[in-house]
Amino acid sequence: MTFANVGTLGTVPGKREELVQILTRRSSELCEMGCLLYEVGTNEDSPDTVFVMELWETAEAHRASLQLDSVRAAIAEARPLLSGEMGGFSFDVAGSPLRVELS
Amino acid sequence: MTFANVGTLGTVPGKREELVQILTRRSSELCEMGCLLYEVGTNEDSPDTVFVMELWETAEAHRASLQLDSVRAAIAEARPLLSGEMGGFSFDVAGSPLRVELS
Repeated sequence: MTFANVGTLGTVPGKREELVQILTRRSSELCEMGCLLYEVGTNEDSPDTVFVMELWETAEAHRASLQLDSVRAAIAEARPLLSGEMGGFSFDVAGSPLRVELS
Repeated sequence: MTFANVGTLGTVPGKREELVQILTRRSSELCEMGCLLYEVGTNEDSPDTVFVMELWETAEAHRASLQLDSVRAAIAEARPLLSGEMGGFSFDVAGSPLRVELS
């Protein structure tokens, strides 16, 4: 079942773009792990926040990706940039108005 | 600039599936309006909540879609199902690790 994860990552002041750089670094491994979509962005109303929106083939694929060496290295690299404020939610995809669901 | 919108919609008890049905009803108009992705789902830990994740060609396309007759009718149909609890955020997409950005 397609799994969706969205999150907000607070950064220490002035470090937002650095975090965006880390999170948007090209990774073919994520595709191989079952990542279908991974969008990273910002909002001018929240100057020290990075937003992430992800779709995965399964919740297990998402969990497994967190154990990848490259992902663990990126998390370690990002940690000093983070304020500790985090938010978000995850859900199981039920459908979309943009496609016909085949059962 | 690609625009992302994610949200949580609280429902009155027992009305979650009914809201999912409304939100996943096939709509080619959304594509025509510049909607790139529209995923609707649920999470067993939040029994009276529906989650939505959207990508649009621009923030203006998203705003304009809310004026479509079909969207206004769906909002009116959904209103009695909603508890009034809502959350979410929106952002401008900066990039993705799944693709090379062409500038």
